[in-house]
Amino acid sequence: MPSNNQFDQILLQRRKKFLANFNQTKTSVLFACPADIEYFCGFSNFLVPTEREAFLYLSQDCQTDLIASFFSLSKKIQGVNFSKGCHGTYLQNNIKNLVSRDQATSLFVDYSSLFVDELKLIQQTINLNIFPLNKNLVWSQRLIKDQTEKNKISQAKNLNKKLLAKITNSLVEGVSEKQLAVIFESECKKYPHAELAFPIIIAFGHHSANPHHQPSHKKLKSETVVLIDCGVKYQGYCSDMTRTIWFGKNPTQKFLKVEAVVKNAYRQAKKTLLKVKQGQAVSAAQLDQAARQVITSAGFGAQFTHTTGHGLGLEIHEPPSLNGQNPVQLKSNMIITIEPGIYLEGKFGYRHENTIIV
Amino acid sequence: MPSNNQFDQILLQRRKKFLANFNQTKTSVLFACPADIEYFCGFSNFLVPTEREAFLYLSQDCQTDLIASFFSLSKKIQGVNFSKGCHGTYLQNNIKNLVSRDQATSLFVDYSSLFVDELKLIQQTINLNIFPLNKNLVWSQRLIKDQTEKNKISQAKNLNKKLLAKITNSLVEGVSEKQLAVIFESECKKYPHAELAFPIIIAFGHHSANPHHQPSHKKLKSETVVLIDCGVKYQGYCSDMTRTIWFGKNPTQKFLKVEAVVKNAYRQAKKTLLKVKQGQAVSAAQLDQAARQVITSAGFGAQFTHTTGHGLGLEIHEPPSLNGQNPVQLKSNMIITIEPGIYLEGKFGYRHENTIIV
Repeated sequence: MPSNNQFDQILLQRRKKFLANFNQTKTSVLFACPADIEYFCGFSNFLVPTEREAFLYLSQDCQTDLIASFFSLSKKIQGVNFSKGCHGTYLQNNIKNLVSRDQATSLFVDYSSLFVDELKLIQQTINLNIFPLNKNLVWSQRLIKDQTEKNKISQAKNLNKKLLAKITNSLVEGVSEKQLAVIFESECKKYPHAELAFPIIIAFGHHSANPHHQPSHKKLKSETVVLIDCGVKYQGYCSDMTRTIWFGKNPTQKFLKVEAVVKNAYRQAKKTLLKVKQGQAVSAAQLDQAARQVITSAGFGAQFTHTTGHGLGLEIHEPPSLNGQNPVQLKSNMIITIEPGIYLEGKFGYRHENTIIV
Repeated sequence: MPSNNQFDQILLQRRKKFLANFNQTKTSVLFACPADIEYFCGFSNFLVPTEREAFLYLSQDCQTDLIASFFSLSKKIQGVNFSKGCHGTYLQNNIKNLVSRDQATSLFVDYSSLFVDELKLIQQTINLNIFPLNKNLVWSQRLIKDQTEKNKISQAKNLNKKLLAKITNSLVEGVSEKQLAVIFESECKKYPHAELAFPIIIAFGHHSANPHHQPSHKKLKSETVVLIDCGVKYQGYCSDMTRTIWFGKNPTQKFLKVEAVVKNAYRQAKKTLLKVKQGQAVSAAQLDQAARQVITSAGFGAQFTHTTGHGLGLEIHEPPSLNGQNPVQLKSNMIITIEPGIYLEGKFGYRHENTIIV
């Protein structure tokens, strides 16, 4: 793991690389997405995820300013200036001061994470050209993970595996979905730098047919399906993993059939992904098709109700989406999930998922 | 607690009351804020808080449509139609179909919770007038809590108190902030319909001087300050509560002095609030001043670094903000926190907070 100082250098290089996209002088950029902010300056102190806690401002010569809420300024970051106040007139004054300090004539803003009211506030304040930031510029950088990021994701994966095993070992008749969720969360909190990547999904019986089921007080009975979809964030980076098992000694024929189909679909997708390693071109759509074809051939096409997977990193859902329409080429050091599934409403669902470094 | 059917009627009345604000015909409204959506139609299935999972569309004759993600449609709600897909072309097609079905000529949209990219998508799709929704219309309704809401908040308060007592009873030398946080969360999950209102703050010693400190692996030693700020959500409604105690038998003179000042500030604010009951006008600013004056007189004015409190309900931070500039009159059935505090950097902080039904 890099030292704090080394990591500050990595962050600086990320910002410089990004700013090289802009050749016009006196251009500045404003980020509002928490994950972008963390990626470019390491700030991650977001307490209430639905509330605005920070913006990140970059000038073309890499002046870096965090415009953060009054409570968020707990840790100094090398090379990053802090301005307090990210709402209303505080936001306006901070942005006015920064663009004036840098004599910026253009401001590129991430419209995918800025609220309309915030844009209006900014427009009222500064008399310069405001353009939508091409978010693909950010993604072309964030999509390909560097060694630091891959290390964190590997650690997240290892911990996820360990915690998932803890849950499967805790399966006893009478335990509730919620009780297992609590075990997962409590165990996760024991590890430094670790937190949940998303609320864990634990689904008994027909609950597993809902891909996003949330743990209830339903109690485990013998001879039933248990689906566990869980994710760990380690130092900000996510992993995502699903296992579906039969709790009991007599799985139904239907369960065994569905299990075989999903696992085969998973293997086909992984096999297709191997081609990237061999230098062949594979698109997100092709990976989806590889898994989907197996499931469709087996007669469950309509019951595979989601994509074959998604990118992940600082966020649990990132590009590339592994859907049948996505032409994006998969490349080394992208991080994706492969997670085919079959959902039989009112009966049960089966999903098998791992996080994979391409 | 009202039955499901009664609650559906309450939701319908909320929508009708809100729509009475619009006297122009063929007007529709689009909500994007999760709490507004829950308030008006009861939908609360938001799994990843930073991702868009639903919009709520209301036509003037109270046709109610939830435009939700493909995974969010787990529960039918009486009087609410579902349209799947809330991103990109799915969002566009759903909105196009709805305004065309209702022959709407104006669409009011909540700009405080709509992303700029989403507004552009909508503008590209529909050929009618789009106006910013006056969010005060929503707040004038959400600010005053009805009996159903007050019941839920009272239950949240009771549970919060019980869980906080559990934490103070768990204070022993060597326990870490994180371990106590896990106890709070696990205990909370045992109760149906209950969840955390926000990540619990547990701060030992000088950590308590940071109002938004997050639990670390720091271990409790004897003769030190412990600050616990915790919130419970019961059936969607929040409570918020802080206690600061001395762990040990010999509190310092400084601690006792600060404690006395903060508790006196709290009492003054509560006393001022009583005037509302007596029919006198009290503004949010006056309440803030009542508490602040006590702290300032004692020489700690600069160390009271936040407002005296905030509204709460479906969200942990709602209007009215109890800041010195807010002229809003406090009214019966508003829900607020009173939470004066003093923060001595590098030493300790003291905050005392309760959730109060005005």
